[in-house]
Amino acid sequence: MAEGAFGLLLDRAAQDLLFREARTVDVFTGEPVGDDLVRAVYDLVRYGPTSMNQQPLRIVLLRSAEARANAVRWMSGPGRARTAAAPLTALLAADLCFHERLPELFPGRPDAARLFEDPRVREESARFNAALQIAYLILGVRAAGLAAAPTMGFDPGGLDKEFFGDGRHTTLAVLNLGRPAPGTPPPRLPRLEFDDAVTVI
Amino acid sequence: MAEGAFGLLLDRAAQDLLFREARTVDVFTGEPVGDDLVRAVYDLVRYGPTSMNQQPLRIVLLRSAEARANAVRWMSGPGRARTAAAPLTALLAADLCFHERLPELFPGRPDAARLFEDPRVREESARFNAALQIAYLILGVRAAGLAAAPTMGFDPGGLDKEFFGDGRHTTLAVLNLGRPAPGTPPPRLPRLEFDDAVTVI
Repeated sequence: MAEGAFGLLLDRAAQDLLFREARTVDVFTGEPVGDDLVRAVYDLVRYGPTSMNQQPLRIVLLRSAEARANAVRWMSGPGRARTAAAPLTALLAADLCFHERLPELFPGRPDAARLFEDPRVREESARFNAALQIAYLILGVRAAGLAAAPTMGFDPGGLDKEFFGDGRHTTLAVLNLGRPAPGTPPPRLPRLEFDDAVTVI
Repeated sequence: MAEGAFGLLLDRAAQDLLFREARTVDVFTGEPVGDDLVRAVYDLVRYGPTSMNQQPLRIVLLRSAEARANAVRWMSGPGRARTAAAPLTALLAADLCFHERLPELFPGRPDAARLFEDPRVREESARFNAALQIAYLILGVRAAGLAAAPTMGFDPGGLDKEFFGDGRHTTLAVLNLGRPAPGTPPPRLPRLEFDDAVTVI
């Protein structure tokens, strides 16, 4: 890349789009979010790295009114109304049996799946790596010019039973997305300074 | 942004830098990674969103030979030698008492800290949100033109006691970073197709 800003190689417009000017807004225009755009986002963010290429994130796009209603009834707090009104809602879940696919996804270590025989080890790894993928997805939604509003106000057991019912998936977040409604976004919340978050020893 | 590629607003060079052409390489040139560059990365990625603005990620940059040696002795597998040789190594940990700062970080809900009185709820939230921040950080390192190689081959209890000793931090990943050595990167591992990871209902 030729440009760069603030000492980085990434150009300023991209920095602003993904981080500096992006905001978690939860009020959207009525413009629908088509599957094509979701595919374009997925096709980019799937390259984000995970430990041993686990890729435990599973996404359920709630397109039908029935599916959305079934999700909303397990939600509480401000996320409930936001989810009912969003142009598109996605359930973001971790596949707790991701290890079954490791022979294909991480072929260099044929014994990789055996490292995850302990369900507690597996769940911790699934949650960690699915969270990495959720972050990539949030930035990917922004890369598409949309806003992503994750919400945590839900009963995960309820959503898991409603949408998976197989005991092998656990919902980590509900993501509403769409084109942000015009108007002033809420004020930016404070961020920790470098010296508050980083120690050099 | 004016450009765009593959149906996204983000320009193609930025997509490639962060996702498509970026690779997890763990062999670096000897070129040092200065604190200025780390600050530039942090100053970008700190804007990545977390639930209720929790920002639980804490970073320890191992600059001294002693600090690095103290980390390496808790590591195993291929990550051990990589960590010993990397231009810069960072411990990435979650602050399990992040809620103490919520009055300042999430002032709109003065009762926010009370939602995290249960240590299990707090740890789950700290791990999830710190993982989001680790993903932002990995992409931020790439935005700086560097390669980031996270490694999970370590004894978290050992690292926690060695570097924190306060019982309130837990190490989630060790991140090696630097300028990738010239040469052919290892082949790209397969990624799940859209239809394998995404369900539309």
